[in-house]
Amino acid sequence: MENFTAYNPTKLHFGKDVVEQLREAAQEYGKKVLLMYGKGSIKKNGIYGQVIKQLKSFNAEVIEYSGIKSNPLVDDVNEAAQLGKLNNIDLIVAVGGGSVIDSAKITALSIANNTNPWAIMKFKVKPKTTIPLIAVLTLAATGSEMNGAAVLQNHKTDEKIGFSSSLNFPKHSFLDPTYTFSVPKDYTAYGIVDLTAHSLEGFFGEGDATLTDRFVEAIIKEAMEYGPKVLSEPENYEYRAKIMWAATNALNGLTNYGRKSGDWGVHSIGHNLSYLFDTPHGATLSIAYPAWLKLQKDRIPERIAKLGEHLYGNVSADETINRLEKFFQSLGSPIKLSDIGIGEDKKEIIIQQMIKTETNGMVHKLNDDDRKKIVELMM
Amino acid sequence: MENFTAYNPTKLHFGKDVVEQLREAAQEYGKKVLLMYGKGSIKKNGIYGQVIKQLKSFNAEVIEYSGIKSNPLVDDVNEAAQLGKLNNIDLIVAVGGGSVIDSAKITALSIANNTNPWAIMKFKVKPKTTIPLIAVLTLAATGSEMNGAAVLQNHKTDEKIGFSSSLNFPKHSFLDPTYTFSVPKDYTAYGIVDLTAHSLEGFFGEGDATLTDRFVEAIIKEAMEYGPKVLSEPENYEYRAKIMWAATNALNGLTNYGRKSGDWGVHSIGHNLSYLFDTPHGATLSIAYPAWLKLQKDRIPERIAKLGEHLYGNVSADETINRLEKFFQSLGSPIKLSDIGIGEDKKEIIIQQMIKTETNGMVHKLNDDDRKKIVELMM
Repeated sequence: MENFTAYNPTKLHFGKDVVEQLREAAQEYGKKVLLMYGKGSIKKNGIYGQVIKQLKSFNAEVIEYSGIKSNPLVDDVNEAAQLGKLNNIDLIVAVGGGSVIDSAKITALSIANNTNPWAIMKFKVKPKTTIPLIAVLTLAATGSEMNGAAVLQNHKTDEKIGFSSSLNFPKHSFLDPTYTFSVPKDYTAYGIVDLTAHSLEGFFGEGDATLTDRFVEAIIKEAMEYGPKVLSEPENYEYRAKIMWAATNALNGLTNYGRKSGDWGVHSIGHNLSYLFDTPHGATLSIAYPAWLKLQKDRIPERIAKLGEHLYGNVSADETINRLEKFFQSLGSPIKLSDIGIGEDKKEIIIQQMIKTETNGMVHKLNDDDRKKIVELMM
Repeated sequence: MENFTAYNPTKLHFGKDVVEQLREAAQEYGKKVLLMYGKGSIKKNGIYGQVIKQLKSFNAEVIEYSGIKSNPLVDDVNEAAQLGKLNNIDLIVAVGGGSVIDSAKITALSIANNTNPWAIMKFKVKPKTTIPLIAVLTLAATGSEMNGAAVLQNHKTDEKIGFSSSLNFPKHSFLDPTYTFSVPKDYTAYGIVDLTAHSLEGFFGEGDATLTDRFVEAIIKEAMEYGPKVLSEPENYEYRAKIMWAATNALNGLTNYGRKSGDWGVHSIGHNLSYLFDTPHGATLSIAYPAWLKLQKDRIPERIAKLGEHLYGNVSADETINRLEKFFQSLGSPIKLSDIGIGEDKKEIIIQQMIKTETNGMVHKLNDDDRKKIVELMM
């Protein structure tokens, strides 16, 4: 086992109607609230009204920034931060999935440190403090509600990258499974892929952490059991709850304790696809993971077979990859670039983008030849 | 799934030589430190010297309270709190296992709220604040290093009871597996029983929390795999590390999220045995759990078989109980009262103590007839 620090100060409120506790949580930070959300689905499903009711109940002054995209842009964070600075806000309330919460984290840092958000993302400015953040989750996927990570893309620098800091943990997160009832089937599936991929990034990290391996098994088995069920019954509270809680645990530290790091090579590959084609994050992962595993099969056969042992009993590395791919496919998530209409004509563009961004894992290093092979395996 | 709050603000530092970070953690709270520990084994194995070195490095004024027993007494807490008040301390550093850390938690509350510790334990005074606590763990067992619980006994009121509060979380905990190398075989075994029992108390709680059930499986399987190994090789770093981390996870919230509560009936039974005969906590649990399961076998056969499915594949409730009992026995922990020299002549005393203290579970309720049956099953 590697030395590690386990620290997660987010207070997470889980269950039906937990947003009724938002007032109590929010009011201790002040009255000037920057409310951040996406493209407005929260107005259709009533979540916006419930959050506003909580904020108005202590006479909060609510400043809104909306329109954040599902592959979030640094431009939005820039604008939100300007708005926040101008209004001298006390607190950010982020209502949405990972893209909104990630954007809110960097907005908070940008305001509090009076700096350009991209300078933070690129480690050019080390943030010293932040603005308190409360998250209301509407999509089970990224785990951003209980971690310090954020991913943004920048079309000027041609990048989609991540940034982590212990300053980024939300003070409170509210997870009501009913808030995910209206998530469409495809995005529900992408969320299940995402939580599985987060667990796998941990599993293929560095360090002998057997309890953590068993936690990975627990989370992926939960996804394998309840993923198909939630897709059949999207308004089943129990199924939504199980997937929501599994997604949080896949990236709140639990799948990484005792390791030096996770690998994160597959996420790195996926970010390129999202950047180039605006492909939803989870969809890029169900395409990239099988390809990555096929590349690694002869390099780390025992580790892949160990994953198989955890998930399926005694099966080979090949069979493990095959079953995982079938699982993603059974959810309706793409497993090949051709499934999302990306043909051979784009192959060279993807390879060049991966070379340019030096797409890599933290543990299993990829060279240009590997990058090329992975793209071929994704076709 | 039941509604729940997941919140655990302890910053836990795990691994070899992590105590070298104690100075940095401690110095932000002030210079007057109450150092609490047990009967002095930390002076023999060098841990005392390492902790003192860290505290002296920032010129802390160290006031010591030692001699805390393995079934900790409220009298010690009372004295430690007097000493702490008299010296106007800023911080408590607890070096030991659960008994020392539990005592330190209530000492901190008693000082900060200027009240009698037993009044807190009995919910007669609601504590509003506390003194910061840092734990240095020397025994893998109770999980006290990363939770808000504390158990004390009181010979005046004839009780051994628990108290939980979110104020009780240590600010920092330092877990160096080498600090457990010198734990004797019997106490190592009791710790493995304790962590298994904590996981089971969660499993037999109320609420359909399948991911939490899988986490319980993960933790107990880790104990079943590495428990026997650490007993064979007590100075094997990896084995000690695996058991230490498993013990923390068995009672840091993870085995309870999504449930209304755990059961805790077996702990309640065990506390009576510790109270009457000063039996080590873990030893009481390896005696009480099989008995409790035998009593519950016809009441919750499916749940016990479900545990068997998680741990052993497809086995019956009877076989599950049999295998768990054999596991405890294989560790060298007693599974009958006769194993620790308690004979038939004590039967009535135990029954009467359990009736007097209204020994019960939070979910699976016990009446006097059940209490009697359990004692008979423990003989």
